[in-house]
Amino acid sequence: MSKYTIGVDFGTLSGRAVLVEVGTGAELADCVLDYAHGVMDRHLPDGTPLGVDWALQHPQDYLEVFYHTIPAVLRQSGVAPEDVIGVGIDFTACTFMPVKADGTPLCMVPGFEKKPNAWIKLWKHHAAQDKANRLNETAHAMGEKWIHRYGGKISSEWEVPKVWQVLDESPECYQAADHFVEAADWVVWMLCGRLTRNTCTAGYKGMWHRQEGYPSPAFFKALDPRLEHYVAEKLNYPMAELGECVGGITDEMAKKTGLLPGTPVAAANVDAHVTVPSVKIDGPSQMLAIMGTSTCHILVGKTESLVPGMCGVVEDGVYPGYFGYEAGQSCVGDHFAWFIENCLPAGYIDEARQQGKNIHAYLREKAEALAVGESGLVALDWWNGNRSVLVDVDLTGMMLGMTLQTKPEELYRALIEATAYGTRKIIEAFAQNGIPVEEFYASGGISQKDPMTMQIYADVTGLPVRIAGSKQGPALGSAIFAAVAAGVEKGGYADVFQAAAAMGKLRDQVYTPIPENVAVYDRLYDEYSILHDYFGRGANDVMKRLKEIKKQAKSIAY
Amino acid sequence: MSKYTIGVDFGTLSGRAVLVEVGTGAELADCVLDYAHGVMDRHLPDGTPLGVDWALQHPQDYLEVFYHTIPAVLRQSGVAPEDVIGVGIDFTACTFMPVKADGTPLCMVPGFEKKPNAWIKLWKHHAAQDKANRLNETAHAMGEKWIHRYGGKISSEWEVPKVWQVLDESPECYQAADHFVEAADWVVWMLCGRLTRNTCTAGYKGMWHRQEGYPSPAFFKALDPRLEHYVAEKLNYPMAELGECVGGITDEMAKKTGLLPGTPVAAANVDAHVTVPSVKIDGPSQMLAIMGTSTCHILVGKTESLVPGMCGVVEDGVYPGYFGYEAGQSCVGDHFAWFIENCLPAGYIDEARQQGKNIHAYLREKAEALAVGESGLVALDWWNGNRSVLVDVDLTGMMLGMTLQTKPEELYRALIEATAYGTRKIIEAFAQNGIPVEEFYASGGISQKDPMTMQIYADVTGLPVRIAGSKQGPALGSAIFAAVAAGVEKGGYADVFQAAAAMGKLRDQVYTPIPENVAVYDRLYDEYSILHDYFGRGANDVMKRLKEIKKQAKSIAY
Repeated sequence: MSKYTIGVDFGTLSGRAVLVEVGTGAELADCVLDYAHGVMDRHLPDGTPLGVDWALQHPQDYLEVFYHTIPAVLRQSGVAPEDVIGVGIDFTACTFMPVKADGTPLCMVPGFEKKPNAWIKLWKHHAAQDKANRLNETAHAMGEKWIHRYGGKISSEWEVPKVWQVLDESPECYQAADHFVEAADWVVWMLCGRLTRNTCTAGYKGMWHRQEGYPSPAFFKALDPRLEHYVAEKLNYPMAELGECVGGITDEMAKKTGLLPGTPVAAANVDAHVTVPSVKIDGPSQMLAIMGTSTCHILVGKTESLVPGMCGVVEDGVYPGYFGYEAGQSCVGDHFAWFIENCLPAGYIDEARQQGKNIHAYLREKAEALAVGESGLVALDWWNGNRSVLVDVDLTGMMLGMTLQTKPEELYRALIEATAYGTRKIIEAFAQNGIPVEEFYASGGISQKDPMTMQIYADVTGLPVRIAGSKQGPALGSAIFAAVAAGVEKGGYADVFQAAAAMGKLRDQVYTPIPENVAVYDRLYDEYSILHDYFGRGANDVMKRLKEIKKQAKSIAY
Repeated sequence: MSKYTIGVDFGTLSGRAVLVEVGTGAELADCVLDYAHGVMDRHLPDGTPLGVDWALQHPQDYLEVFYHTIPAVLRQSGVAPEDVIGVGIDFTACTFMPVKADGTPLCMVPGFEKKPNAWIKLWKHHAAQDKANRLNETAHAMGEKWIHRYGGKISSEWEVPKVWQVLDESPECYQAADHFVEAADWVVWMLCGRLTRNTCTAGYKGMWHRQEGYPSPAFFKALDPRLEHYVAEKLNYPMAELGECVGGITDEMAKKTGLLPGTPVAAANVDAHVTVPSVKIDGPSQMLAIMGTSTCHILVGKTESLVPGMCGVVEDGVYPGYFGYEAGQSCVGDHFAWFIENCLPAGYIDEARQQGKNIHAYLREKAEALAVGESGLVALDWWNGNRSVLVDVDLTGMMLGMTLQTKPEELYRALIEATAYGTRKIIEAFAQNGIPVEEFYASGGISQKDPMTMQIYADVTGLPVRIAGSKQGPALGSAIFAAVAAGVEKGGYADVFQAAAAMGKLRDQVYTPIPENVAVYDRLYDEYSILHDYFGRGANDVMKRLKEIKKQAKSIAY
């Protein structure tokens, strides 16, 4: 008798449930629900206006995902509730919220509905940048060692800047909150009635360390005296390991979802990190790149190293028994979209239309016809700064080699190649610090739709590139962890490695480096590296000076 | 009683006559005739195919310009032939041709019509590049000093590479030619029956020097033993000074044009250089920029200096008593056209159409709204190499500072600014070598149509920019030299300075540097200079290495 798990992936604009067969990883049904309130970046539901760079969400939207999508996948698949042995979830992170002791989100408490700081701050809420800056300065000034586990920089997207903003702007909200909780952990709590903190978000977004715990009260006090006891007062609930069963579905939630009461619920996870088992990665040297508007790289290693530019290293943060590393490129698909929107001539759009082709496909077709090196172009992929090895948001884009014969498809391909060079820089930084990479796994939209880019990545990195077999990598990953939470007795797995081997999926096709291309790309990468270091490591800080001039010009002009 | 002269300007695709009042410079009539054969770059009129990079013209097309346009301007203006006191011409250069002693072009001699090398090689005939390369190598190997008057490099567009190609490929054409002649001098010959060689083309395109004459027979012999006596055998006709009266209109030409026999004909001139008096330039420190697809800079000085990157210095080559300097930027309007063609998104074109605006005007409107420095961009204007200070065709374009917010108008403006920085480099090179520039005069299409670009040039160079008052600068210049050739007795002028003062024309509006803009552009220019030297002077030869990779890629791909 087949058993099944359900993975629920909470994205930026919608939530998706996938029902997966535990023995094979076959995806029998999936269902998406868009959040009714989407991303609130202008005003609250009642019209209360929000400031610049705010991004909030509504907790009810998350619950509606459970209520709608779980019954739907059960119905679609015809699978009986008793054969569903576990539920797992993953979430954007850090998406953080103040709550009452009974789980009520503070924004739902009468008297707090109109206070923006009572609501859920989405990962891309950027209004706490000043807090992040002060946090980083303070950490370096105090010689805090943990900051080096995060490439020397805590992002304004992470936990403490967001909490500090609540305290600073709305102390009554901070006071009224019994806990601060990752939305990931809150939805698990709502499913099974038990509040826990998953080690993945705690480690990557909350500066928690298995051996050292959180930063000290002295550090929090240095930020703001009122924050001194933040950890003790607001994070006073237990940790949960990835794949751990946090509890069983509550009676109330069973009624709303159609699952049986007591069905195991796995610890929450982050959408990127949870994807690793979905592509059958089983240990070190295998890098997963989740390629979309930006790229997130996940890799596990046997030791804890400080790798320049990594976003974080967390023990057991991806797989138990390993140190999980995260790195990133802040602009990948965004580069290509910028190009299409701002640089693509009308003639190309007309031609694509006449040929009945999607403009991306049309452009890729032209770009694919170019031999490696034929464009004579090289670019630095820093249109959105560099969040990789250099960790410098003030770097900007560069391209050179243009002639009057340069065509749009050459510029486009040069941008794609630049992101591949950026990926190779990250791989080399890991290798130089004792975390070698031997295989490259790609998931996300680009990996599914763009064979040219995948071949370029293989040729630039010199590594075989394997492609995710599922388009729903995060949801499949959550279903895999759900099978681990269910355990062997219930028909699941003893650990994530066994679960990944059985349920993870790869396409048959592997993009293998083509030696002739690799030889040319090695030469082009050498040029990229010279320019990368010249513009990125202080020899010529022209990009920063231009940004300074730009700021001054804008302040005069407006 | 008013007197008049006619200036005839022979361009690449057409010839234009302008009838000008000698006292005021007022242009009473003008007429254009397109050449019936245009530029022959694929085959001769009889279908004989041409090689790659060939560009020939038909001599009859030039004569038709006289036959059609001179009667037309007389008719349009109602001016009586007896009131026309002189004719002047200017021409593209070096546009060179083999002729018989009686003036018959070799291509019109029976038996030679099918031989491409018997025809007129237009300035942009580039099929003698290998000859130019060998000429340059030989000159440097032999320590020839004259080559430094040409920035160290003779162009394949100039005289000797073209003549050498005739000799090498078609020795029978070389043998059969009694003379080799600039087309400029040939049309003057046809007008007045006397063969002369104007000092301007001889100096700038023929390596002739007032004191030293031509390169030695030993040098020509080193190129090819058969060229040893090239000067003595093929250039055996007298020089003519600019503004000199070479002769009077012949009876036959009088019948065909409606002018009186004996009407003075001025020595020929080059289209760029002849423009100088049309903007009232009267001596040193005043640089003329003729701004179109590329820009040509002309400047006179009191001494002969070797300025890096200049195309040539010729004594009396522009004005008597001065050393005339020529410099250039190989890609100006071409940059902007490349951008419009390859980089302008469909949305902009639609929007311009909806607003009923020309796309250039629409884009300029957006670019003009930007504050100086607001784009955060800087570019190197090397899409067609650098023909300025660096004299290096293997350099390519570069732009940096792009972000995901960068808009097309910012890229466009950065390209315009880059050409202005390139101009400032040329100005500084002259100043550093004792030829200061204090005023900037602009003629050509961009100067007439693009106020934003003119203000940018003023702000970047820190110089007042004056704009040509005539759209027909070369033809007006030719008419001015015609008035000098006519002389005072006939109602003309004693010298070109008096003629320029009376007949030259400037717009009232002067673009004056705006101090706030100058201050920001000084900072941006510093950044340009650092990048200019880094990429242009050997610190990082990435552009050349990429070109090498590109060549190899193309040779494999095709």
